[in-house]
Amino acid sequence: MNPVGPEGQREPHAAAGGGEAQEGEGRRGRHERPGEAPASAPLKVALLGCGVVGSQVVRLMHEQADDLAARVGAPLRLAGVAVRRPGRKRDGDVDPALITTDAEALVTRDDIDIVIEVIGGIEPARSLMLAAMAGGKSVVTANKALLAEDGATVHGAAKAGGVDLYYEASVAGAIPLLRPLRESLAGDRVHRVLGIVNGTTNYILDKMDSTGASFTDALEEAQALGYAEADPTADVEGFDAAAKAAILAELAFHSRVTAADVHRQGITEITATDVASAKAMGYVIKLLAICARSEDGRSVGVRVHPAMIPRSHPLAGVREAYNAVFVEAESAGQLMFYGKGAGGAPTASAVLGDLVAVARNRLAGTRGPQASTYADLAVHPMGETVTRYHVSLDVADKPGVLATVAEMFAKHDVSIQTVRQEGHGDDAQLVLVSHRASDAALSATIEGLRELDIVRGVTSVMRVEGDDIR
Amino acid sequence: MNPVGPEGQREPHAAAGGGEAQEGEGRRGRHERPGEAPASAPLKVALLGCGVVGSQVVRLMHEQADDLAARVGAPLRLAGVAVRRPGRKRDGDVDPALITTDAEALVTRDDIDIVIEVIGGIEPARSLMLAAMAGGKSVVTANKALLAEDGATVHGAAKAGGVDLYYEASVAGAIPLLRPLRESLAGDRVHRVLGIVNGTTNYILDKMDSTGASFTDALEEAQALGYAEADPTADVEGFDAAAKAAILAELAFHSRVTAADVHRQGITEITATDVASAKAMGYVIKLLAICARSEDGRSVGVRVHPAMIPRSHPLAGVREAYNAVFVEAESAGQLMFYGKGAGGAPTASAVLGDLVAVARNRLAGTRGPQASTYADLAVHPMGETVTRYHVSLDVADKPGVLATVAEMFAKHDVSIQTVRQEGHGDDAQLVLVSHRASDAALSATIEGLRELDIVRGVTSVMRVEGDDIR
Repeated sequence: MNPVGPEGQREPHAAAGGGEAQEGEGRRGRHERPGEAPASAPLKVALLGCGVVGSQVVRLMHEQADDLAARVGAPLRLAGVAVRRPGRKRDGDVDPALITTDAEALVTRDDIDIVIEVIGGIEPARSLMLAAMAGGKSVVTANKALLAEDGATVHGAAKAGGVDLYYEASVAGAIPLLRPLRESLAGDRVHRVLGIVNGTTNYILDKMDSTGASFTDALEEAQALGYAEADPTADVEGFDAAAKAAILAELAFHSRVTAADVHRQGITEITATDVASAKAMGYVIKLLAICARSEDGRSVGVRVHPAMIPRSHPLAGVREAYNAVFVEAESAGQLMFYGKGAGGAPTASAVLGDLVAVARNRLAGTRGPQASTYADLAVHPMGETVTRYHVSLDVADKPGVLATVAEMFAKHDVSIQTVRQEGHGDDAQLVLVSHRASDAALSATIEGLRELDIVRGVTSVMRVEGDDIR
Repeated sequence: MNPVGPEGQREPHAAAGGGEAQEGEGRRGRHERPGEAPASAPLKVALLGCGVVGSQVVRLMHEQADDLAARVGAPLRLAGVAVRRPGRKRDGDVDPALITTDAEALVTRDDIDIVIEVIGGIEPARSLMLAAMAGGKSVVTANKALLAEDGATVHGAAKAGGVDLYYEASVAGAIPLLRPLRESLAGDRVHRVLGIVNGTTNYILDKMDSTGASFTDALEEAQALGYAEADPTADVEGFDAAAKAAILAELAFHSRVTAADVHRQGITEITATDVASAKAMGYVIKLLAICARSEDGRSVGVRVHPAMIPRSHPLAGVREAYNAVFVEAESAGQLMFYGKGAGGAPTASAVLGDLVAVARNRLAGTRGPQASTYADLAVHPMGETVTRYHVSLDVADKPGVLATVAEMFAKHDVSIQTVRQEGHGDDAQLVLVSHRASDAALSATIEGLRELDIVRGVTSVMRVEGDDIR
């Protein structure tokens, strides 16, 4: 599917309205009826970073000023924009008078109510957010890396400061995902979150699947089209998806999960042959982020790796750079959220949604629901994860080969679901798909196979997911 | 797609904890840190109705008591259940001591904090909700009929009472949809909401499509399986979907929309032939709820009717009784939400999600964001809606027929995209698909065609949607 963006009906620029905000007035003065007739004093917003996302935030705050004011109950005024290179040309007509290079001074300004952080990375983003929250400002951020690496610190600062920390934009761009997990499913028990949360790798894998291209060629095309960066490491090695998986798991299971807890494997090893043989079996290869509760419900597994999923699976139909996330909850059953996972405007949409929520909370003198880790579930090692393997072996074509290979699976208590031999003589390939077993048993089986004389080589090993929700 | 529900990991029943709640204590006493360590005094919940949904609410409030308490910051205690037939056998082990037939007395009890209404229908639901809100209780409801017919009254009562009115469960069951529209997209401009919001009709149309069954046979199967009621009118005539469309439109466009504003057409007229000819063209027939902003952005159209959509459209893959809703917003682009649109447990999941939110708000002494109608857009008549028609004509097979038919389209400024003739002689069928035009012009064209001598009959007229997001 390849949606076409709707025509934009733009409203004329509307000024955010006059009047200076007395600090904290929102908390005291406008408590009784949040979200009613716009109050006169605007809420002042500081923006950290004015790149692809930041410039869209500026544009939309201008264009939708009237709507935002009506939805919040007070005008939102952009009071400062911190950038590294003030001279740089920008979209979204940023008022030059708002530009500053002193982010530290901006986030500690007395009149600032809310800080939007779209710089990304760990520092200086973290120090600036901590300074802002210590000063009683609420924060809206799209910073997945920081939340996944050091979420405890920033969540703790929000709690200590009695302020909001919202970050919908940090995962799956415009797709409402964190709010549904945190709020809509607050009365349910999430069992599994399984999704495509990195558009770059999905674009590459989709091209490999639809055109038969190699990883390198598909990556070059993605780079040419701006879907992949010059240094694609964060995307193709799964770091970006792993950070998102940690954030999703923390919310879904109310337990502390960091990027370091996530088993991570990228897509750089995937060959055109892997893609073709998956296709031949009615499967497609996707880079999945999987956060799952263990059978006994006492621990969670969080992993990012390529996997074969049936073409009949809803995630198999997610093309190009789109994202989609499946959530399986005990009562709700299976839910899917689909949309654009990246890009300036989509990410800005998520940022502004959070901005409106945070602004409403300030007017109401309260905080929104925070991420909680009360369940305190342990993250179990990858070895304990139950999954299935698709294995291709380059074998000698002689009697007894299959028996020897089957023995190795049996030795590790891994049962084989299907096996087929392709070609013969020197080209003999044995392709096996296992039943569900622990990842430890499966990888031990692979190690064992490598040591067999009759196995010339293990040509590919790929996990198989999603059969249970075909 | 046909997901299988996950295995339920159940916690042993946990009591909601002791201590009497002093009325209003929540508002005063626990203001500073919402959502922290569970406070001792429980919030008391009254349940109105204990049928398919209500009994699941009771079960889940028992089984997930500890989780709910941790997420709210205080235990939730079921304090009373109003039913019509107290003797009736129920699932979810309802404590008989909680059962009452005096709903009026229950909703006005001093110690009740939150009222859950799952009776459905206009009365007595409305009177009970109004009494509850007048008494300062927040309300969680699944009542789409009431919200669509008289939303102004109940929203007004919530505002006047300074309480919450949450109703996620009223549309698309477990699918988080109202919260994303109201909150996640609060910083964006929604252009169109297009979705499958009635599981019964989707099941029937899916069966007709996959088996070639007639409407009557498919309906009987749906009734046998419990997907359709003995009196299927509300579903098959589109009343249920129309109520949901009104609720979605009101939230999406921040304007008052009632069921009476919704153009409604059911699926009872759809024949196996319609389905087959759609299939032959690569289309599938779905009952769609469509809420769309006009080209100039100054009005909205809200309609429910069967439509042909391309098989490549994501909504085409929504099988059986599932629901899915597409949302097109200016910055976010296209989003899709998919899941179970009905059923006891899924609907209860949505109810409990709202219950947690409403309970958190009470502890924080605030209200959540309310539905706003500040934009006050007019709902334009169906005639002004721009759409496309697929028309089948039974014609005399003689020279000049096509010319005459084409003239009639031209007369009403409707241009033809495709035309093809099937069969000849007495069986000649002319099948035309128009380009986009106003519904008024299209229906005038159809009227004109009916009057032509060479047109023996207009065998079918169906709107075509979704080509623009193929």
